[in-house]
Amino acid sequence: MARRFETVSFLSDLGTADETTGVVRAVLRDMAPHTVVVDLTHGIPPYDVRAGSLALARAIGYVPPGVIIAAVDAGPANGRSHVAIEVADGEGVLVGPDNGLLAPAVAMAGGAERAVLLTDPEFHLPSAGGLLPVRDIYAPVAAHLCNGTDLADLGPQVDPHQLMPGMVPLPREAGDGAVAAEVLWINRVGDVQLNVGPDDLAGLASREGDRLQVTTTAVGAAGDGDGAVVRVAEWVAHVGMLGPGAVGLVVDPSGMLALALHRRSAADELELAPGDQVTLARLPDGDRGPGVTSPVTLRPR
Amino acid sequence: MARRFETVSFLSDLGTADETTGVVRAVLRDMAPHTVVVDLTHGIPPYDVRAGSLALARAIGYVPPGVIIAAVDAGPANGRSHVAIEVADGEGVLVGPDNGLLAPAVAMAGGAERAVLLTDPEFHLPSAGGLLPVRDIYAPVAAHLCNGTDLADLGPQVDPHQLMPGMVPLPREAGDGAVAAEVLWINRVGDVQLNVGPDDLAGLASREGDRLQVTTTAVGAAGDGDGAVVRVAEWVAHVGMLGPGAVGLVVDPSGMLALALHRRSAADELELAPGDQVTLARLPDGDRGPGVTSPVTLRPR
Amino acid sequence: MARRFETVSFLSDLGTADETTGVVRAVLRDMAPHTVVVDLTHGIPPYDVRAGSLALARAIGYVPPGVIIAAVDAGPANGRSHVAIEVADGEGVLVGPDNGLLAPAVAMAGGAERAVLLTDPEFHLPSAGGLLPVRDIYAPVAAHLCNGTDLADLGPQVDPHQLMPGMVPLPREAGDGAVAAEVLWINRVGDVQLNVGPDDLAGLASREGDRLQVTTTAVGAAGDGDGAVVRVAEWVAHVGMLGPGAVGLVVDPSGMLALALHRRSAADELELAPGDQVTLARLPDGDRGPGVTSPVTLRPR
Repeated sequence: MARRFETVSFLSDLGTADETTGVVRAVLRDMAPHTVVVDLTHGIPPYDVRAGSLALARAIGYVPPGVIIAAVDAGPANGRSHVAIEVADGEGVLVGPDNGLLAPAVAMAGGAERAVLLTDPEFHLPSAGGLLPVRDIYAPVAAHLCNGTDLADLGPQVDPHQLMPGMVPLPREAGDGAVAAEVLWINRVGDVQLNVGPDDLAGLASREGDRLQVTTTAVGAAGDGDGAVVRVAEWVAHVGMLGPGAVGLVVDPSGMLALALHRRSAADELELAPGDQVTLARLPDGDRGPGVTSPVTLRPR
Repeated sequence: MARRFETVSFLSDLGTADETTGVVRAVLRDMAPHTVVVDLTHGIPPYDVRAGSLALARAIGYVPPGVIIAAVDAGPANGRSHVAIEVADGEGVLVGPDNGLLAPAVAMAGGAERAVLLTDPEFHLPSAGGLLPVRDIYAPVAAHLCNGTDLADLGPQVDPHQLMPGMVPLPREAGDGAVAAEVLWINRVGDVQLNVGPDDLAGLASREGDRLQVTTTAVGAAGDGDGAVVRVAEWVAHVGMLGPGAVGLVVDPSGMLALALHRRSAADELELAPGDQVTLARLPDGDRGPGVTSPVTLRPR
Repeated sequence: MARRFETVSFLSDLGTADETTGVVRAVLRDMAPHTVVVDLTHGIPPYDVRAGSLALARAIGYVPPGVIIAAVDAGPANGRSHVAIEVADGEGVLVGPDNGLLAPAVAMAGGAERAVLLTDPEFHLPSAGGLLPVRDIYAPVAAHLCNGTDLADLGPQVDPHQLMPGMVPLPREAGDGAVAAEVLWINRVGDVQLNVGPDDLAGLASREGDRLQVTTTAVGAAGDGDGAVVRVAEWVAHVGMLGPGAVGLVVDPSGMLALALHRRSAADELELAPGDQVTLARLPDGDRGPGVTSPVTLRPR
């Protein structure tokens, strides 16, 4: 008998407009009544494995010991298997599709220990029709894990190195110390998280008050194709230090750099969406000091 | 003293943009602290009793023993009573308006046993103003049931046959083996659930690979009135087997037939909304075999 | 050792599209596993302290003993401190920003007893980057309170009178017995809650059936600036008593007066948004009796 778990954290692209996530909560309550479900989010855009994997990676450090159900693009049409992956000396088990969704969180949690394919129908629920993996596989498997079933009993073990890797984009050097970054996430107020941390900018900026040139190239959904936006951004501790309309570069609560404005949406202002590219470069005249008037102009709309 | 319940499942048309459902959870936590609330969904469109009743019927088979609060168009303006209905040998009690919302789920659970009208103010909460049934009646009644109050003590018994029946639409034969179906539900990715199961198509198609003619007639909200859409749909195990743009007919996770595309919204493609009619018929030339090129054309947008 | 709490009620402007509120639930589950989280709502519009304070004030009377986390415009850019405020003989503690958000609920709960500034990093979580108060301060502080830490140990006490007051707008007399009211809240079906109760209308209307002239002046977001809308509203017990298109004045479930239509959105019909002004006045000819044909006209759109 393995350890029992008390918590199931749950992230999906299923939305809450219908009963789908509710049915998962109901199955867990029914099969493992001692557990508590912690809904992380169900607002991941449908099929968006990258967005789901990033949200899960941002959350994993805060998730209590237990099972994590992650279901993004988990339907049978993705042609992928379903897996359970043990991490953190058995303190946690991630359950979801083998489509790269779990990989970044597994890495954040120290890497995979054991992994199994969830192919054993003994641990599934029957469906009245087509398979709904989150309801028919992930929920009952999570309940069995919470009730003390050992991971190894759930299905054939698989080498974690054979699972699909994650898709976290890395920044690139863009010449003359510039960094070509990518938008990872837009939060509710429009802050634009980039895939670079403070250390990645060492050659460009090293402290608050430094200023950079920001050039955007829309490749995602929000761009309207009218070319690049070029702006100056000042590295500040938080957006409250920015003047109206000024673009700031802040270290966000995940430790990543983000473009942000004070009480306005940087995503709207800069026409950025997840996946868009942003180049951070030295100002043309090399001036990076504080105290110089920022040449910010509000573009006509 | 009747049995106590440990779980309250909760479905409504109240949304989560304001505190209304939160107040219900707070009342339950306050009055019956040993219970766990399982939110099924609060995304039913306002007043849409049909959509709520269908979601509840899809969920009921997964709901654990306990009380179910269902509140769709539950306000006093509907002119209906409020009821509690016992099902499944007392394993469950449904609490909600007598407007047909509960009927399909009650039927799925094996039919009503006892039913009472929730007219006794002893089991209600006082309001500072107008009545909010979900807060002032359903929540405290559910708490009393969880605390062991017997259904019969909550109000005058009523013959379940006198309650308002549900409104589940039945498919009709449309001549030459064709079936006139109706759209029950559009899920988050745009799959279009119809009110027919695989057995209803026996005369038209009996196995995967069979092909049908699909004719839509918009009567719901999404239609723009430009007439019928005619397409060919192939019965497939899941949408991953479909080519780009091809319309599939799948048995969905509820056991019903659904129109679906691979990574696209069938509802958008076919301009369908709940309540719209869809006729499934033999292909004009009688050809239903696999291996024939599907005459699917992508309509201009 | 102070009392322990079993419940954390949670209201925010964080939405549920990403994992932010989920991380707060995870932290609470991890640090105080015996507690239950009651989500009140996370749909408060970003930065809208007024809307958040009103929702919290409407809810507080139903919230069970315990801790309340309220996070609206709680980021460091607001330049405000973070506080915990004890109410109701220690039955409840509100945790949130000192920006007026908590004040109306504190008043509803009988006023502040002790209050402390949450400046002690011993009770915070470290961040990988910028501060996220709801995750880094409110969640761990709430967990410590639930685990029995006394309020006084959490930080320096502060005189509650020095905290920022709330911003509940009061109605004004507008001459000839008329009342200039303000829109507090639009609910999901478009009912328009005003900042007046039945007693505030004593000079204008005193019973159901009375009729009033309603003049709107849009100052909020929904108005399109085309001037005032003038309509007649009849005071009714509930909107089911109104004819099609007729505007009603009802005492809503919070005990406030609301403009409402039967199965239609009063907010859409009258082009009203929170913050807009509405003047309630005697009908021009002084006729307030029932039984007179209402001169309601449906404006062209």
